[in-house]
Amino acid sequence: MDIITLAHGSGGKKTHDLINKIFYRHFNNEILMQQGDSSIIENIGGKIAVTTDSYVINPIFFPGGDIGKLSICGTVNDLAVSGAIPLYITVGFIMEEGLEIKDLERIVISMAEAAERCGVKIIAGDTKVVERGKGDKIYINTTGIGVFENDLDLTGVRIKVGDKIIVSGTLGDHGITILCEREELNFESQIKSDCNSLHLLIKDILKTSKDVKFIRDITRGGLSTTLKEIMQGKEMSIVLHKKDIPIREDVSAICEILGFDPLYIANEGKLVLIVSEDNANKVIQTMRNNPLGKNAAVVGEIVKDKGGKVYLKTEINGTRTLDMIEEDLIPRIC
Amino acid sequence: MDIITLAHGSGGKKTHDLINKIFYRHFNNEILMQQGDSSIIENIGGKIAVTTDSYVINPIFFPGGDIGKLSICGTVNDLAVSGAIPLYITVGFIMEEGLEIKDLERIVISMAEAAERCGVKIIAGDTKVVERGKGDKIYINTTGIGVFENDLDLTGVRIKVGDKIIVSGTLGDHGITILCEREELNFESQIKSDCNSLHLLIKDILKTSKDVKFIRDITRGGLSTTLKEIMQGKEMSIVLHKKDIPIREDVSAICEILGFDPLYIANEGKLVLIVSEDNANKVIQTMRNNPLGKNAAVVGEIVKDKGGKVYLKTEINGTRTLDMIEEDLIPRIC
Repeated sequence: MDIITLAHGSGGKKTHDLINKIFYRHFNNEILMQQGDSSIIENIGGKIAVTTDSYVINPIFFPGGDIGKLSICGTVNDLAVSGAIPLYITVGFIMEEGLEIKDLERIVISMAEAAERCGVKIIAGDTKVVERGKGDKIYINTTGIGVFENDLDLTGVRIKVGDKIIVSGTLGDHGITILCEREELNFESQIKSDCNSLHLLIKDILKTSKDVKFIRDITRGGLSTTLKEIMQGKEMSIVLHKKDIPIREDVSAICEILGFDPLYIANEGKLVLIVSEDNANKVIQTMRNNPLGKNAAVVGEIVKDKGGKVYLKTEINGTRTLDMIEEDLIPRIC
Repeated sequence: MDIITLAHGSGGKKTHDLINKIFYRHFNNEILMQQGDSSIIENIGGKIAVTTDSYVINPIFFPGGDIGKLSICGTVNDLAVSGAIPLYITVGFIMEEGLEIKDLERIVISMAEAAERCGVKIIAGDTKVVERGKGDKIYINTTGIGVFENDLDLTGVRIKVGDKIIVSGTLGDHGITILCEREELNFESQIKSDCNSLHLLIKDILKTSKDVKFIRDITRGGLSTTLKEIMQGKEMSIVLHKKDIPIREDVSAICEILGFDPLYIANEGKLVLIVSEDNANKVIQTMRNNPLGKNAAVVGEIVKDKGGKVYLKTEINGTRTLDMIEEDLIPRIC
């Protein structure tokens, strides 16, 4: 069984072999194959978006995806929610001595397939190896570059009282999948991670309405944390309606048993949007025509309250105030 | 004593506190402070260079630098050797639970200072935390973006028989420093890492001569590995003259004792150039006027031999063939 050794991180013969046999083979494109210390992009226009993320998820393979697919989709999503067209990604691998090369190749193939689907090129990379017990199989950094085709301001400055909050589908699937895998919880459920790239869904949305004022993918910290972030420093608040928030029954049941709140659980293929009241229905219809948005729903609205709060109206008409996540109940979900 | 906990990686309150108190405070610039999922660069022109590197060096503080300075200088150097002007850097931190926050801050300040000196902005970042025993204090990924002001081809296609090989200073200082620190070898030497950004030295060189055909910073694998990489697939070879290669006496002595070859030891502030015979002296003079190039020397030349080899003429007029590094004798030097 071939495994990663410290020599694969030496920058010498074994590093080159690995790069040739695994990385160049699967990521092959003309920019990467320049093989320079930097990769040169000949012509990129004016305004660009740049984002970086490291992925340390455990386990590295899970129902619905793996660390490779996650690393590409996550970075593509971060670019796309800014309104950018994702184009280029760099990858940095930190591998633990002993990682099986067949696992590495499976991850790399998964990255190559995700990149192909997203229309992005992997243009530069780096390989480091740490001793056994100084890592956990593999960590991946992806940095993405995208370009803008329109001038729509999605930073949230256009948000107004009355605007609707939309989520693209069921919440908590990713986090609960990872938890069940890791703790070997056998709930006999069919839950799998929603890990996916949302750039085409976002493209559809932006084509439908110019009154989309904010888009973000709901990842670490769940919907509550994401909305609370948006509201920071804002002179208005959000009211969410629990009954309207799409959550799978099995996810809801597992959360109940374990004492988790699905509004704090991570997703890797879900969006939250803030859209004018007028355009909300139109946007929902567009989203439901895309498989990744088929459970899209209006879940709340912007209200006058000046505190920058996020309120949750419960089914029995109570009101809770939601804050950012405090403790990390399910660490390393991305 | 404040330490990093898993909650700092949750994406919630503690992550935001850390970002505000440490990262935004020291890396403060208008692009980073957009605080979006992506950072938007308003206007970047035409041809750009992109490079990525992860840093896993152990120890994280060492004579002459630390992992933070290294991560900025390394990425700046990778851009600069391509002929690009370094402009923007993204940073991804993977921290081990238990890392002292004062150590993190020291590293971040060191990165901020290095970025300031290099004229680059840190425009986006990411923070992940792994459990104790799943990392080693801190790993950093830096991805850099630069732009081109000239059209000089530094990919090596212009290399010709007779061209001179120049190195910018003494070899092996970085690797031997790290080794001595790590193994607590007490050689009572004054060796420190050469960790530094070389973009200004490169700027001087490119202003002096259009006949510079290749520049690379000599890092992992040392001069031998770097030159062997350049020669891959080339219809010519290199001859190096051992007597002309600048190596500190103490580095040379330690290598002798430990059985290492300084030509395979890593550097973090040294360049190798390939320059036309005519221009070599002029370039050497320019380099020697910069403190980072004061020991610059011609160490060899391109010869007719078709094998793409790297030969070393020893002091007693023997000839050895140099190859890429095979085993990693000093792992995690960057």
